Order: sequence, then structure tokens, then C-alpha cells
Amino acid sequence: MFRINSSNVVALEDRCCHRGLPLSKGVVVGSTIQCSYHGLKYDCSGACVHIPNQEKIPSSARVKSFSVVEQDGLVWVWLGAAEGAQGQNPDRYKWHTEEKWAHKGKKNYTRAPASMLIDNLLDLSHVGYVHGGTIGVDPKSHSAAEMNYEPTAWGIVMSRKMRDAQPPSTYVAAAGFQGKIDRWSDTEFRPAYITISAGAKDVNQGAFEGNQEGAFWLKSLHAITPETESTTHYFWTISHRVRDDMPGLTEFLFQEIDKTFAEDKEVIEAQSNNLLRTPDRPLIDVRADGPSLLARRLIKKWKEQEREQSTSEGTSLSAL
Amino acid sequence: MFRINSSNVVALEDRCCHRGLPLSKGVVVGSTIQCSYHGLKYDCSGACVHIPNQEKIPSSARVKSFSVVEQDGLVWVWLGAAEGAQGQNPDRYKWHTEEKWAHKGKKNYTRAPASMLIDNLLDLSHVGYVHGGTIGVDPKSHSAAEMNYEPTAWGIVMSRKMRDAQPPSTYVAAAGFQGKIDRWSDTEFRPAYITISAGAKDVNQGAFEGNQEGAFWLKSLHAITPETESTTHYFWTISHRVRDDMPGLTEFLFQEIDKTFAEDKEVIEAQSNNLLRTPDRPLIDVRADGPSLLARRLIKKWKEQEREQSTSEGTSLSAL
Amino acid sequence: MFRINSSNVVALEDRCCHRGLPLSKGVVVGSTIQCSYHGLKYDCSGACVHIPNQEKIPSSARVKSFSVVEQDGLVWVWLGAAEGAQGQNPDRYKWHTEEKWAHKGKKNYTRAPASMLIDNLLDLSHVGYVHGGTIGVDPKSHSAAEMNYEPTAWGIVMSRKMRDAQPPSTYVAAAGFQGKIDRWSDTEFRPAYITISAGAKDVNQGAFEGNQEGAFWLKSLHAITPETESTTHYFWTISHRVRDDMPGLTEFLFQEIDKTFAEDKEVIEAQSNNLLRTPDRPLIDVRADGPSLLARRLIKKWKEQEREQSTSEGTSLSAL
Repeated sequence: MFRINSSNVVALEDRCCHRGLPLSKGVVVGSTIQCSYHGLKYDCSGACVHIPNQEKIPSSARVKSFSVVEQDGLVWVWLGAAEGAQGQNPDRYKWHTEEKWAHKGKKNYTRAPASMLIDNLLDLSHVGYVHGGTIGVDPKSHSAAEMNYEPTAWGIVMSRKMRDAQPPSTYVAAAGFQGKIDRWSDTEFRPAYITISAGAKDVNQGAFEGNQEGAFWLKSLHAITPETESTTHYFWTISHRVRDDMPGLTEFLFQEIDKTFAEDKEVIEAQSNNLLRTPDRPLIDVRADGPSLLARRLIKKWKEQEREQSTSEGTSLSAL
Repeated sequence: MFRINSSNVVALEDRCCHRGLPLSKGVVVGSTIQCSYHGLKYDCSGACVHIPNQEKIPSSARVKSFSVVEQDGLVWVWLGAAEGAQGQNPDRYKWHTEEKWAHKGKKNYTRAPASMLIDNLLDLSHVGYVHGGTIGVDPKSHSAAEMNYEPTAWGIVMSRKMRDAQPPSTYVAAAGFQGKIDRWSDTEFRPAYITISAGAKDVNQGAFEGNQEGAFWLKSLHAITPETESTTHYFWTISHRVRDDMPGLTEFLFQEIDKTFAEDKEVIEAQSNNLLRTPDRPLIDVRADGPSLLARRLIKKWKEQEREQSTSEGTSLSAL
Repeated sequence: MFRINSSNVVALEDRCCHRGLPLSKGVVVGSTIQCSYHGLKYDCSGACVHIPNQEKIPSSARVKSFSVVEQDGLVWVWLGAAEGAQGQNPDRYKWHTEEKWAHKGKKNYTRAPASMLIDNLLDLSHVGYVHGGTIGVDPKSHSAAEMNYEPTAWGIVMSRKMRDAQPPSTYVAAAGFQGKIDRWSDTEFRPAYITISAGAKDVNQGAFEGNQEGAFWLKSLHAITPETESTTHYFWTISHRVRDDMPGLTEFLFQEIDKTFAEDKEVIEAQSNNLLRTPDRPLIDVRADGPSLLARRLIKKWKEQEREQSTSEGTSLSAL
């Protein structure tokens, strides 16, 4: 993936069609990427347009290219056939562009299947057990949260409400809560990503009666992208309302959530190691698994639909 | 494996039956172990007794538990079916409890099959070649030791005698030998462990005529526990008679034997790497292999007996 | 591989025939190598000549031995059957022994198939892209070099000429070029190694009309030895004419070429990783691949001839 003239983003197969060097080791020359081994150049369609000391370029000299949309500070890559991308615009993500809001993100690499990261986000009862030092409080408050979820045309919506709860240390530091709070989160699960809109407000201020004015908000985007069947690229960002009196707030929240995800990574990689070693031992489901089990059924259904369409659209799903 | 109330030891399958996190990452809560991912709790029978925010616990919510006996400073785990453990008491090991004796031990991890560690202990002719800096002297003295061994109802006994030998540096430092010594070792090989009782006394003091009074003794226990077909947990301890004038003796002997086993580990892992890469090249046996070849035949026989009994008793043997 | 009496070189299978320890961990005792586990000794024919405390040595107690010729500062090992080595003398390499010439070399370990290292040396159009800091200049000069190659009775000869070119930084430092140069290289590809004789001289001094007097020469030997199908030992040396006014010249040239090969290693290992992950994606050939494609055909032919002879001669080819 590279930018032409510091502008358009191009996504090509990361493998020169001559001797296989990753093109990500190459250099951008004008509107082409030049391989760093023997100097072949490719344009943004993936066609080879230059072979040193050779006039004729065979038509087979090309690498795959992928449809790309850059929008709201995100680069969306369509991994399926280019035709399928026609008229398909990725969703907008307003929390990267909203006035008076700031955001920061990162890519994590996790040695576990993408499905285990999705499970993690769709069962937030783990927050009290795993994240006591940042966004979690006593486990019971999280487990007993009022939870609702349902399928939609595009995925799943899930909401959680914690009434009269202790504020977690991250929220105290970021928003100055002095007593108990009402706390909520609204999660949306879609094929390519998950968003969580988390909020909190002093208790007894009508938060659950429609008055969220003055609430503290932490919005997050989780683009969980399978690399192989057992490894995953995890792109994430957090967004928050700017506070003029707290210039370091973006960095603080980013660091807190980075710690939180490092805790998740440790748990999920241990889980993955254990399950890969013992594929024949049984597992059980519990009530809190409702949303993640629904997500698995949806992913299964989406993959079947993809196969029925006999196209390579959306092959990004295949490793989920 | 965990202790309830700092007392009883419990051994459970290291894999939560919900999402597979190792329970060894959990915390002990009362008489249960609580998983650190979603908070499921298990009692000492392996039954799940708590699922957060869920009243009904399915009967399938359980992990395997293993019969455990803690005795003489050792924890013995019966890996077979619980019924098979009935009336089966592990052997006593008096050198951990004898008055005026002290001991210290450790667990080593070796990237080699358990069988190669057993071979190592049952062919002590290697001591002169591998352990010249601690318990070994000139190789010839070790190779030429008078050796006897025979099968018993429960395994193998092997004795070795070295007459009129140079004392090794570990023995000189620990027992103050000033001249040559008579030196001996009595090894017992059993399904789950090996013991070696090594002794030495000044030469011409009747050691081999029944007078072992005043001898220096070093007793060792070697519990060689297969992890996989090519990796092994090696639990070991050394025991010795306390000397009031040498308060650091336990630590000294422990460090010497720890060095010795680090030397073995280097040899055995190099051997294992080489043999795994060249499974088709032939190997020969030599006379000194008598005890280890007998041990292999016994292990083969024990495994066949185990299969004939059609139970899962003693499955700890299966990776040997 | 070891020396008897600091003299004759012996090459044996690196695996004791008793319990498999690498003999390279052993010690040389007289004219034997003694295994460091149980003390078996082998003579230079690979026969076991000593088993501690055992008089009879079975005739099967032996390891493979290989015909070895030490010549010109190189040790040549014949990996095929000993009979095949009869009357086969390795080529001489005069640039290690020529008066007033000096040389220095090294062994590199590369996680890539040997074939990718051969490709690298037979397509020098990469020099401008990969080695700009040492022996390369602008890529175009290298790509556009006049190149000729042809098969011979024993392999391939290839010559390259760069007229009126910028001198690369290594040459400037070593030979003091102040303006443009004529530059050439003559490569010979044989089953077991490649040699490159590179030279340069001030432009317009008749270098390409037969007058190479006063030229700067850098001769190199590349013995590319497969370890496995995807790993390679790469032995190399550089040779140059001694200059009394530059006592550090050997070390300087060695360091420059060492840097150059570290650059190649990075490229070739990235290439190998990528190709091993995507064996089903197509590759194309370009004009500059002529010599390396010819080399592949020759290697294929040599391997077929080897099989037809139904001997194990020259099995060193099998991993190429």
C-alpha cells in the first residue's frame, strides 16, 4: 500500500511478479512503485510498466490490485473482485471528523484467530476480570449489566447498562467523577469492523431517562482483520470530545486503552495456544455468549452467501 | 494445580471449559479456582460451581480432575482414571523427611523425549565425559565401574562401584576427601521416577565390605515427566545429611547438581535435534546400554498391559 | 570436520552412531574424534575404533566419511560415494595463492534455497538497486551493461561490460578513481561454485581493446552449498592485488563485500519467505534472467544424469 504524490492510496499484492520480493520493500517513483530487487515498476492498476533494459512488457507482468477508499482517516481495502466494489461505499465514521473531537489509533498484531477477538468484544463481562486497572471495576457490576442485543439488516446491535456503578480509574482520571455513575455502551457488529460507543454520567442525573447531556464519551473503532487462520491484524482507534483544559487527554486515553488491549492480547493468545493444542476437548457456552454466538452464525451465513454468488467478493471473510 | 486454604493440593485440567483460557492464569477464591477471563469458578472435583450472572450451571460444565497425593514434600498426580487410583499409594521418599537430612530441588524443561533422559540416567558411563567439572573424574574410572543390574517386580535395580578412584571436585568440596575414595551408586528405576543413592568413603576403609559408616551420601530423585513426544518436564531433588559446620551445604550441592543437569540438557537436546532430523539413519547399542535397553522393554510391556486392561490408568506412560 | 595433528582434514557424518550426539561437539584425540557423550572414538574412515569398557566393536559401528581435498586454502568435500571421487580433482583457485595477492572470506547462513542465491549472482542487474552504497552506481548503468553468456562443457561463462560509468564508492576508495571508468566482470558458473572476476580502469585507456594493464581487480569465489531445501551455507572469499601503500586494503574490501552480501541476504530471505507463502501465484521471467534460467536447465540436466548413473555421486546437487 502506498501513496502517489502524497495523495491517492494504492493497494497492490505485496509480491513482485518477477522474483517475488515484497513490493512493500520498494520505493515510490512518480506514480509507480519500483521493486527494490531488479527495478520493475508497477502502476496503480498493478500492471508492470517498466522492466529495466527491456522494451516489451508481457501482459502477464502484473500483480493484483485492490479497490481502495480513503475516508475519515481510514483506508478501506476491498479484497474481493474489483467489480464487486462498484457502488459499494464504506460506511462513514464520523468520530474521526466531528468538530471538537480528537482520535488516536494503532495496529496490534495478535497470534490468535480473528474470531477470538470478536468474541472478546462481544462479551464485555470479561472487563471486570481482565481490565481492573483501567476501564474495569468489580467483576460483578460488569457481569450483571443489563444487556440487550438483536440482529439487524447489517449485523448486530448490543447495548449494556450499568446503573449506580463505581467509576473505573480511566474514567475518573479523564472525566473527574467523584461518586458513583451510570455507565453504558452501544456496540455495533458489522462484517468488517465493530464500533463501541461508551458513555458515563453521574448517577441520578437522568442518563437512562434520555438526558445524556454532559456525559463522558469514549467511542472506539475495532477493525479486526484476519491475516491467517491463527493470526490477526487488529486496527483500532479511540475518539473523545476535546477538552481545552486537558491538552493531554487524547494521549492519556490512547495509553489507557492500549494497556487494556495488551491485557486482552495476553489472555487471547493464551486461549488460542490452549485451544490449538486441544482441539478435541469440549467447550460449553454460557448466557453471556449470546451476542458472540449470534455473530458466528451471521459470519457463517455471510460466507455461504458469498460462495453461492460464485464470486470472489468479500473474500476478506474467508479467514474469520 | 493449586492449594485450597494453603492446604490441600488440587490438580485440574489446565483449560477452562468455557473459552479455553489456562486455569493456571486464574486466582484461588475460597475453595475454588476462578478463571481470569470470564470468572467461571471450579471446585476441587473439576465441577464448575459458578458462572457469573447465570443461575443454572450445565452438568457438562466441568474440567478433568486428577487424584493427588501430597507426601514427603512431593505432589503425586494420577493421570489415569480416578478409579484406578483407589488404594494406590505412591511410594514414600524418606530422604525428604529423615531427621538431620536436608533437600532442595527444581524443575527443568528439556526439549527432548523423556526416553533420552531415562537413557542418560541409566548409563552413567557418560559422567566422566560430560560432568568433569562437578561429579565426574577421568572417563575411564566411570566407564570401568563394576556394574550390576536386574529387573525386579517393579522395575530395575542397578548398582555401580568405583574402587580406588579420584574424588570428583563436588565431593572434595562437600566432604573434604584428601586422597582416593571408594565410590558407589544404587539406582532404582520405576514407572514414574528414578532414584540414585550415591555414596563415597576414603579408600581402604571397608566401604565395600559392609562398613559404610562415615560415608558421604548424595541421594537424588528424578521424576521424568513427558510433556509431549519431544519435550519433558524434569523434576529433581538432591538430599544430604546436614552438617552443622557447613550451613551452606544444601545450596552448594544443589548448585553443583544444577550445573551437572545443565550439561546433560545441552547434550540431550543436541542429541534430540540430531535424531529428529535423521530418523532413518541407523544407531548401534553398546554394552553400557544394558540397563537402558531393559528399561525400554519394561516401558513397552507396561504400555501393552495398560492397553489390555482397557482402562485409562497410568496414561502418564503413553508418551514415554 | 576436523584436523588430525593440525594437518589432514577429515569430514565425517555429524552424528555418533551410538546415541546420535553431533560429533562436532566432540574432541580430537590423536588421530580420532571422541564423542562427548559416551566417549566412542572414530578414525578418519568413519570406523568406530574405541568403545569404552568394551573390547569387541561391531562392524556396524561407523559413521559415513567423505572424500576431502584441501587445496588453495579451501576444503572440498565429495558428498557422493567415495568411488566417484577417484581421479576427480577439484579445480585449482589461483587467486588464493598467487604471489602479491591477498584474500579473505567468510561463511554466511541464508534462510533461502540455494537456487535463489545462484539467481542473485547470475543476474547482476540487481547491483544498482540493492548495492548503491558499495559496488553499485545508478541502476541504469548496471541494467544496460553489455552482457554475453553461453554454455560450456562444464557450466556457463558470462561477461558484462559497463562503458564510461561512474565508479562505485568501494572502487573509488580502493583504487582512487577520479573520473569515469570502464568496468567489466567475467563470471563462471560450475556445479559447486561460481567465480566472478571483476575489473575496472579509467575510461579511454583501452580496457576493452585488450589493454587491462594497471586495472583494479576484485576476484571473488562463491561456494553456494545447500543445507536443506530452504537454507543455504554460502562460503565466499574476495581476492585482490596487494598494495604496499595500503596495508588495510584486504580488510576494507572484505568489509565492503560483507556489507554487500548482508544487503543480498535481506532481499533474498524476504523473497524466500514470500515465495514459500504463495507457491501458487505465478511468476514471470525477464530478459535479464537468461543466465539464471540456463543455470536451472543445467542443474536439472546434471541431476538427471546423476540419477541415470544410479550412483550417489555428487548428491550435493540434490538440494539445488
